[in-house]
Amino acid sequence: MPLIRISLRAGQPAERHRAIADAVHQALVEATDVPADDRFQIVTEHPAAALIYDRQYLGIARSDDLVIVQIAWRRGRTVAMKRALYQRIAERLRDAAGVRPEDVFITLVENELADWSFGHGVAQYVKE
Amino acid sequence: MPLIRISLRAGQPAERHRAIADAVHQALVEATDVPADDRFQIVTEHPAAALIYDRQYLGIARSDDLVIVQIAWRRGRTVAMKRALYQRIAERLRDAAGVRPEDVFITLVENELADWSFGHGVAQYVKE
Amino acid sequence: MPLIRISLRAGQPAERHRAIADAVHQALVEATDVPADDRFQIVTEHPAAALIYDRQYLGIARSDDLVIVQIAWRRGRTVAMKRALYQRIAERLRDAAGVRPEDVFITLVENELADWSFGHGVAQYVKE
Repeated sequence: MPLIRISLRAGQPAERHRAIADAVHQALVEATDVPADDRFQIVTEHPAAALIYDRQYLGIARSDDLVIVQIAWRRGRTVAMKRALYQRIAERLRDAAGVRPEDVFITLVENELADWSFGHGVAQYVKE
Repeated sequence: MPLIRISLRAGQPAERHRAIADAVHQALVEATDVPADDRFQIVTEHPAAALIYDRQYLGIARSDDLVIVQIAWRRGRTVAMKRALYQRIAERLRDAAGVRPEDVFITLVENELADWSFGHGVAQYVKE
Repeated sequence: MPLIRISLRAGQPAERHRAIADAVHQALVEATDVPADDRFQIVTEHPAAALIYDRQYLGIARSDDLVIVQIAWRRGRTVAMKRALYQRIAERLRDAAGVRPEDVFITLVENELADWSFGHGVAQYVKE
């Protein structure tokens, strides 16, 4: 269910992109109830002037390797699960793609089960 | 009111893009209460490595012609209206742009009437 | 906290992009409770065929200089604050970047404090 938008600085090797996308998905599967085959991600690259971030907000030293992850999924996950997800994403991004934990920005947007159609024009998550 | 983001694989003819955008808008007008002149859409193309999807989640056989449609609109539509919308989008995309129904991925994100300004710095949907 | 996506027609000078991004951030700081160093913005350019808008919806005469601003932030701001924000964004965009007030399209999407991680895999806005 999640639809995930990952935004990165342009000019990085394609392998890094794939490693980042894989790491985010793996973290979702490990830390939440998202199935392994429920994967929909859009990765976009942006020139330096177009990916604007504060280098110290909340005392976190960010760099141009910033990874912005915006996850759209259904409402209902607990705060504990969200915390576990953030931690796991940061760990996976560090281990698999060499992303500094300071450079992992994550935000969620939530909707309802009726707000998803995975094909055929049907709302698969809604019971009759 | 809807702001619609349509994400596609790169390398398709521009005419296909336009047909897809037109079909999504037409379906909204036909299946919901969105006025014909309430149209705001952003279509983006993505290289194969950057538009990542599962080829069989929920048993639906997706292809590289996948069309991801994310619709932001106000809260309040019924489940029945959302179902009608999904069905109509899939039909219109098939008929007007040759999109396989398996390749139509739709998700909604909802907000409030006060969350929209259509120009002049005014919240047009909020009564005084 | 806000994550802001600003969408523009391609082919504009880079200075205009920066002026627009700066103006939106300045308006947020002036009209709301967003701190000056809480800035995360993604600016994207789109060819004419991919940024589709109605030229007269609600009687507002839009042009190709349309600026679409989508702000993700936490729920809880009042309607009065949102109105003040829209007005200030339109003013700042006009004064700093020459954007016509008719060309300022703004929409909000809201989430919860637990829906943000600014680095280190931690939900900084959630108390223990």
